[in-house]
Formats: sequence, structure tokens, C-alpha cells
Amino acid sequence: MTTYLSGIQPTGRPHLGNYFGALRQHVEAARTDGEHFYFIADYHSLTSIHDPVVLRELVREVAVTYIALGLDLERAVLFRQSDVPEVTELTWMLSCVTGMGLLERAHSFKDKVANGIKPSVGLFTYPILMAADILAYDTDRVPVGKDQVQHLEMAQDMGGYFNGRYGEVFKRPEAVLAAGGEHLQRVIGLDGRKMSKSYDNGIWIFETGKALKKRVNRVVTDSRPPEEPKEPESVVLMDLMKLFLDDAEFEQWSARLRAGGEGAPGYGHLKARLTEGIEEHFAEARARRDELLGDPAELDRILAAGAAKARARAAATRDRALAACGLR
Amino acid sequence: MTTYLSGIQPTGRPHLGNYFGALRQHVEAARTDGEHFYFIADYHSLTSIHDPVVLRELVREVAVTYIALGLDLERAVLFRQSDVPEVTELTWMLSCVTGMGLLERAHSFKDKVANGIKPSVGLFTYPILMAADILAYDTDRVPVGKDQVQHLEMAQDMGGYFNGRYGEVFKRPEAVLAAGGEHLQRVIGLDGRKMSKSYDNGIWIFETGKALKKRVNRVVTDSRPPEEPKEPESVVLMDLMKLFLDDAEFEQWSARLRAGGEGAPGYGHLKARLTEGIEEHFAEARARRDELLGDPAELDRILAAGAAKARARAAATRDRALAACGLR
Repeated sequence: MTTYLSGIQPTGRPHLGNYFGALRQHVEAARTDGEHFYFIADYHSLTSIHDPVVLRELVREVAVTYIALGLDLERAVLFRQSDVPEVTELTWMLSCVTGMGLLERAHSFKDKVANGIKPSVGLFTYPILMAADILAYDTDRVPVGKDQVQHLEMAQDMGGYFNGRYGEVFKRPEAVLAAGGEHLQRVIGLDGRKMSKSYDNGIWIFETGKALKKRVNRVVTDSRPPEEPKEPESVVLMDLMKLFLDDAEFEQWSARLRAGGEGAPGYGHLKARLTEGIEEHFAEARARRDELLGDPAELDRILAAGAAKARARAAATRDRALAACGLR
Repeated sequence: MTTYLSGIQPTGRPHLGNYFGALRQHVEAARTDGEHFYFIADYHSLTSIHDPVVLRELVREVAVTYIALGLDLERAVLFRQSDVPEVTELTWMLSCVTGMGLLERAHSFKDKVANGIKPSVGLFTYPILMAADILAYDTDRVPVGKDQVQHLEMAQDMGGYFNGRYGEVFKRPEAVLAAGGEHLQRVIGLDGRKMSKSYDNGIWIFETGKALKKRVNRVVTDSRPPEEPKEPESVVLMDLMKLFLDDAEFEQWSARLRAGGEGAPGYGHLKARLTEGIEEHFAEARARRDELLGDPAELDRILAAGAAKARARAAATRDRALAACGLR
């Protein structure tokens, strides 16, 4: 059986770009054959989130979001990274077989330093913790974006160094490169740029009512009057509409825009329909989210169950590693 | 109650220099009031010992030596570092509050790099693991040699950074500087230099019989005949004799050397008496060691009991730290 591992950084409330670019695929992937581990990388977040209340909230929000979106908990193991402390033991063991040069060459560290971030040791040794996460579960495949390929390669290297010194302990993980345009949808943000947390141009997937309306009202438009015929590609709103309407309905709106004249929709009409579309699309998930938020014990139970499964696997790997290097 | 912590590196079979310079003081210290934690630093040893069989042997030898020398196990908690994995969790948390600069300034790292040792990440982050060890047990006092003062200061710094960001979690440890000449005896090795593992000029404290005789025969002498009067200070053997004879007997030998003539002892006589002295001094401890080696389950039981006490303390500290930074 093939084992997949994905890590999710608890960075903020997920927006439409996160959903169409990653969350949806994650939830779908868990329906395929194999074992699927999903960890919420809260240890990693210590390098950037220094407020304990915020961190705790974000971790729960990520968990609730996945479950609300329909992650199949029979197949997928959803857990908090810090519930598996075995990865910090593995981190130490891997530290002792890893040369400084490997970490010094890490892009993400160099980028952060170049951007004037005063580096902590955690920021520097981060790839070792990430390698420990990957190796702990005997992972076969790690779905990664292009910017994460190096981290996976470093995990391969560290596992290889350890095996080279102490014998076969770690399985070699392989990257599954998420193909660009075909599978991942690039979502346009309110301002017409790529939707991104750093631009504050996103729409939270569970936004609703007045707040959602206000947010959608911020999508950029222009001053062309409704009756002026328009190519749908020239209307940012239509990029977002496409994500939520079925093909037939989307074609109708497109045709009416192209035709112009009296029957053509104004931007206000499009915004109203988009708001509706978003609300509908996430209605079921939103209801599940509300339910989960009202029952914190249930969420705790789910995370505890995930942690137990993940820990059992990680503990077995840790035991092999300890025995191989002469500890315990 | 004051809590003391000492770490012992499992580097080799302890020689007379280790005994008079450290082991004996450790065993005596455990008889004073307070709590005494002694950990065998096997995680640390991964940075230098890469043979699992050797490492496992050395760890057991260190444990057996302490017990055989009379470490009071009612008062002292003797345990393996790797039996307390909580310290690796603390290591990660401390990594995230520690700047790269602090580690880059560590003498021991700079020395090793200057000596051409290709540094592993473990060698670099070693002081964080050491800080985690110290902070994990709410340690008040750490007996250190001069070369270790910086490590203790780094532990104070890291604990302070963490407390500064997240509130009071770690107790501030203080160094107890082992006074130089008064308490620590500098032991002369076989070749007249300081006894040291790196010179291979030591005598294993439990050496006995022919092997011990052979070893003592290697103590440097000169070609002056027995009847020639000699100052005892000019005879290396007398430095070692002083460690094992009572004052009255030592004075007799000294007087006979000074007097010279027919009644004066030859170097062979001194060596025979020294061999006897060493055998006598460690006879009781050697018997206990043999007993322990014959009963590996008993050693396991002792180490497990130590680990349980140490873990309980470290887990409480770890829980406080996790809660403070928003994990679990």
C-alpha cells in the first residue's frame, strides 16, 4: 500500500485560492487508494507565529476546515504535528548525520535571510524537522509544489546519510509534483492579482451574508455601462463566476455579456450571482463547520484518534532508528 | 530543595584522572542535601560515536562505574539522556527562540571547526540540547568546569528568551564552578603528562592483575640506581603513590627515597606497591562492578527507575512549555 503525506501550515483562514489550489485536491486525494497522512504543522509554525492564542485557533481552524470540506476520516489520518513528539527525536538523530552545508544551501533559509528576517536556529534547522516528518511515516509519496522539491530532496539525502551510516532504517520518499495548469486552478483575487494572503485580496471560503457581500463588492470592475458588449475574459468577476457556475449557466452569462444591449447584466448582477454561488457551494461544508465548532469535544476526539494512528507509526520508525544508532 | 544536574559523556573506560578529577566528587556530591540528577549523555555522543555497539557498551560502562563507586541511588537519579525524549521536544521549542548568532559564538563549535572537523548540524545545535537538558529538570545548580561555563550561560540565555516571549516557564540555572587546585586533583599519566584519554597514558580504574601490572610498568622512571638519594617530587611514581597510600605510609616511602643507600626502594618496589594500592583502593567497587555485570537485568532496572523519575520531571516542564507557546 502506498503511503502519502501532506503537511499543512496553519497560517490563516483559507481563502478561495487555497481551496481551488490545494484543499480540494487534498480532500479528493484522500479518496484514492493508499494511506493518507495529513499533519497540521504546528511545530513549524513556532518559527513565525509567536502568539499562543492565535496559533491554537489557527490549528483548530485548519482541522475544522478539512473535516467540513469532507476529508474522509476513515481513510485519512488528520493530526497535529506536535502530537507526535517522536519527530523531534528523529530530528536530533538526523541532525547528527547532516552536514551544515546542506542546510546552508536551503533556498527558503537563504530567501528569508535575504529578506532581512533575523534567522532563528529553528528557521535554519526546519528542513530537518520536515525530513523527520516525512521519514517518520514510511512515506512513499509526498505531493509537493515546485517550491518544495528541495525540501523533499533534503529529506531523501538525510534518510540516505542515516541509512548509509547505520543500515536501512528509513524508506526513501518520492516527490509527486503537482502538475501546474492542469490540476491546480489559479484563482484571481479581489484586485485582479493572484489571490494570496499576503495581498489581502482573498475571500474566506466560509464567508457568508453581509460580510461575503461586502467582500465580493470589492472585486475590481470598470466603468463600461451594462449595455456595452464585453468579452467575458475582460471581466474579472467572470473568472470567479466560472468556479461556481455549471458550464451551461456560465455560457448563458457569457453570451449575455457578449451581446450587450438591454438584456445584458450589470456588474451588480454578476456580483449578486457570485455571492449566491459561493454561499451555495460551501453551504453544506459551512453547516458541518458550525456543527463542529459547537462540539469542541468531537474535534478533540478526531484529532486524538489521528494522533494515535500517526504516533504508532512514528514510534515504530523512531524505535528502529534508536536501535540502529545504539540508543536505548 | 536545591536541584543539581550533572551530565556525563560516555567517552571511554574511566581512568584514574577521571576518578580523582570528577567521578569521586560526583559520588560524594550526591550525599549532600538536595536532588541530584545524573544523566549519561548518549544523545550527545551521536555527534562523535558512530558505532552502535560501542556506544551501547560505553553507556552501560558509565552507569556500572557510578553504581560500583557507590553512587547513592536513594538520593541520586541516574539515567540515560535518550530515555527522556522530552528534551528533544524542548530542543525544538528553544531552537525557535534562539538566534543563529548565539550558536555561532560557541567556543566548542569554533574549536572543532578550527581543528578541521567537518561539522554536522548536531555539533552546531548541541548547546540547545544541552540547554534543554538543564532546563528540563528545573535545575538550580550545575557543577561545571571552566570550559563549560559558556554552555551554562547559553542555557540561561535560551531559557530567558523563551520566558521573555511566552512568560515564566523555565527556572534560571546557576553555575557552580568547581574550584581548581583545591578540590580537583590533577593526575599524572604514565608518561608524566596529565592523564588523558587522548594521550593514551591512563590507567583504567578497574584494571587488575597482570593487565594492571603491565600498565603500571609503563610509568616513566629514569636510570638512577636505588641507592642514590632522591627527592620524592622527582619521581613520577610517587605522584601516583600519593593518591593511594595513607599519609604515614607515604612519608615512610618518601623518607627512604631521600635517605638512599641500602634500605632505599628501587622503582620496581614502588611499582609493586602502587599496583597493590590501586587494586586495594578499588577492590570493593570492582567486586560490585563484577556483580552488576553478571546481572544485566538489575542494571536495566536501575536505569529504568532513574528514567521514570527524570521523565516525570521533564514531562511536566515540557507540558508547561507546550502550553505557553500554544501547542497541544
